[in-house]
Amino acid sequence: MRVALGIGYRGQGYHGWQSQPDGRTVQDELELALSAFVTRPISTVCAGRTDAGVHGLNQVVHLDTDIERPAFSWVRGTNRYLPADIAVQWAQRVPDSFHARNSARGRRYRFVLLESPVRPALEQGLVGWVFRPLDGEAMRQAAAALIGEHDFTSFRAANCQSPTPVKTLRAIEIRRRGAYWSFEFDANAFLYHMVRNIMGCLVAVGQGRQSPGWMAEVLAARSRHAAAPTFPPDGLYFVGPYYDEALRIPAHTPAADWLP
Amino acid sequence: MRVALGIGYRGQGYHGWQSQPDGRTVQDELELALSAFVTRPISTVCAGRTDAGVHGLNQVVHLDTDIERPAFSWVRGTNRYLPADIAVQWAQRVPDSFHARNSARGRRYRFVLLESPVRPALEQGLVGWVFRPLDGEAMRQAAAALIGEHDFTSFRAANCQSPTPVKTLRAIEIRRRGAYWSFEFDANAFLYHMVRNIMGCLVAVGQGRQSPGWMAEVLAARSRHAAAPTFPPDGLYFVGPYYDEALRIPAHTPAADWLP
Repeated sequence: MRVALGIGYRGQGYHGWQSQPDGRTVQDELELALSAFVTRPISTVCAGRTDAGVHGLNQVVHLDTDIERPAFSWVRGTNRYLPADIAVQWAQRVPDSFHARNSARGRRYRFVLLESPVRPALEQGLVGWVFRPLDGEAMRQAAAALIGEHDFTSFRAANCQSPTPVKTLRAIEIRRRGAYWSFEFDANAFLYHMVRNIMGCLVAVGQGRQSPGWMAEVLAARSRHAAAPTFPPDGLYFVGPYYDEALRIPAHTPAADWLP
Repeated sequence: MRVALGIGYRGQGYHGWQSQPDGRTVQDELELALSAFVTRPISTVCAGRTDAGVHGLNQVVHLDTDIERPAFSWVRGTNRYLPADIAVQWAQRVPDSFHARNSARGRRYRFVLLESPVRPALEQGLVGWVFRPLDGEAMRQAAAALIGEHDFTSFRAANCQSPTPVKTLRAIEIRRRGAYWSFEFDANAFLYHMVRNIMGCLVAVGQGRQSPGWMAEVLAARSRHAAAPTFPPDGLYFVGPYYDEALRIPAHTPAADWLP
């Protein structure tokens, strides 16, 4: 029997998603809690591995088990064993053909950025920070150059394991609430560090260090050296994957309303 | 020369505001940082002491010094010595007659509450949590009974040091964004645990355990035993004090837009 779970977590205290022999990771905590709940070893496959410091709103995993439990008992039972900054949001039985990563039609990431002369304190680790003002129209113009199917080599980290640098970026939505900017990215899949590398370039344009037209040049160069430095991970949220609607996998969790 | 500062902080890691010989408090961190910046001891007086776990958006302090510095250099210079979850937001020279606590015309607190079958994870420590749905209209009706000048003995903790239980509650604004409720309290001053005690009663009404009319009975009883238990501190924010407009003390900081 295959079960899918949605996981929310604050990434600050963890060495990223993926299990490590010596590291404290979200996957390690989740699998420990699941195994404690069903009293036998459980391993999981996730929709998208996140880096150290990156947060998850609705990370989706699947697992195989012969244990029968009502859906909400997977949520409540596992959460009892999880640390306070990780929680299963929902659980659902899925067909054996469902695969958290391979079945995903796309993924969304959000980057939240504080624009202020003063660094964050209350929201430390939960937002990125720029002290020079950003020009929203310039950033939107630059972002438009990236929409569609492209070779994103310029925004790809050296150790990226994707078989191809060609991805389809469906949308970049840039909004503002007070001093906070949010950038929501929707793509079929993302290269390693792709969002953080695009963020570095968008901020360069937003602060007038580059023109909006520069983004198309960076994309066309197909060279990591053409782009701005990788933006720090604070403020990056894996909103989650989405699937065929027929599967009825929840695409949102309450915390999506928490963020600007 | 008297200087006023606005301070933002995440309360999770501290034993409250007030300096303690053995405790790690926000005041201790702030005074250490200020003293490091001006290279001599500095002590501060705050507008409102906050408890362990309570966050600050715009706590106001004043200090006396013979050091002359441009206003923003107090901000930047002090923040260099502060931990990542505390930051000076602004600094301003004020008349010697200004007193952070005694000059305040009023104070605002906000309580943020997640209504969800699942406990918080990403927002752990930053929101309170109820798993049973809340009725906004019933809570607004109950809250209305508290507006005005009243004897708030029923909502006063045993160890409260206020000379009088009579306070003027100017407003309780109840809003909702997605799964998050926010309750903003505005009063001339607050008794010890007053917001958390009112929150306990509002939630009892919101979940139908008490009728909206019960709140007036609790108030009239002038007895702590009449009210619901004290609500936990997670989700409580000291928005800050406000003063005569002529003083031009900032009443808001960017993080007010961060919260629901």
